[in-house]
Amino acid sequence: MSKGAATKGAILDEAIRVTSRDGFAGLTVGSLAERTGMSKSGLFAHFGSMDRLQLQVLVRAQERFVDCVVRPALATSRGEPRVRAVFANWLHWASEIMPGGCIFVGAAVELDERPGELRDALVSAERDWLEMLVTVAGTAVADGDFDPDLDLEQFAFEVHSLMLGYHHASRLMHDPHALTRTRRAFDALIERARPSH
Amino acid sequence: MSKGAATKGAILDEAIRVTSRDGFAGLTVGSLAERTGMSKSGLFAHFGSMDRLQLQVLVRAQERFVDCVVRPALATSRGEPRVRAVFANWLHWASEIMPGGCIFVGAAVELDERPGELRDALVSAERDWLEMLVTVAGTAVADGDFDPDLDLEQFAFEVHSLMLGYHHASRLMHDPHALTRTRRAFDALIERARPSH
Repeated sequence: MSKGAATKGAILDEAIRVTSRDGFAGLTVGSLAERTGMSKSGLFAHFGSMDRLQLQVLVRAQERFVDCVVRPALATSRGEPRVRAVFANWLHWASEIMPGGCIFVGAAVELDERPGELRDALVSAERDWLEMLVTVAGTAVADGDFDPDLDLEQFAFEVHSLMLGYHHASRLMHDPHALTRTRRAFDALIERARPSH
Repeated sequence: MSKGAATKGAILDEAIRVTSRDGFAGLTVGSLAERTGMSKSGLFAHFGSMDRLQLQVLVRAQERFVDCVVRPALATSRGEPRVRAVFANWLHWASEIMPGGCIFVGAAVELDERPGELRDALVSAERDWLEMLVTVAGTAVADGDFDPDLDLEQFAFEVHSLMLGYHHASRLMHDPHALTRTRRAFDALIERARPSH
């Protein structure tokens, strides 16, 4: 990796940290310059504009999400174990990797009423993620762990809802039972997904 | 109601609309002055400071939430019908009453990392809401609609997660199946809550 690419990556990682905590509204050139020790003009030389920077923050966050959540899950056995791995990795991502909460959960609320390229990029990333949940659950259907009649999109919607519930309970409410509740609900979801005898 | 109170209420309702769409970050004295046709000093005369105004926006939103979601549900029959009424009223609130998405869902993400009076007020309002879900589900246990061993806090957590899932699917993803999926998941939750035979 060139020095330029490494610098750019480090700036984006810092920008992810800021956005994770304060949203895109809190990501300003001034604050980012201060936190990275770069000049404002140096930042603009790398990214051109705030709009470009925001888009690249999303792209970088999605790359890190794939590395952290998706890729290791794809290395586990197909079927229910892989569904469980995806979920466990996501919990790890949201609680350990993202210091200020999952950047996608925050952005979803921040951008939902703001048409534009950034919103489009977020919707596209979320669609990829929901389709990944569908695909992974599909391996559990194919291998007989889940019911052949399982509505995969419905399953993905319910898993995703639980993730949002976990985020709310842990981040806002500081609920000490957030993780236990989320896992129990997830186990019940898995139970319902299994073939009925 | 005095003219002063009516004016104040109208300002707060406009502030709720702005916050529902753009978050507290988007609620500025300038934009609110423009939208209400008042001077900035006139606004300050009513609310003293932006901090006070934000707090009163939350208080007013909670009052409206109680009027729209909680109070009519308490007028329905205890038990499962009341649980269903609360959920239906919440869906109505989030999709029809809040033009830019439920103000509490947005504020949860915006404020989760911002310690202070506003965050405390939000956590308190959310706690009231979760406890209301527990209480209402408790009437269904008492009347025999739900299993006596039902974990009410767990049930409330799962209902709340579904609401967040609905908000995400409808607001960000513009998913045409958002409502159907949410209702199906809710029905499954009710089904699991019933006494096992």
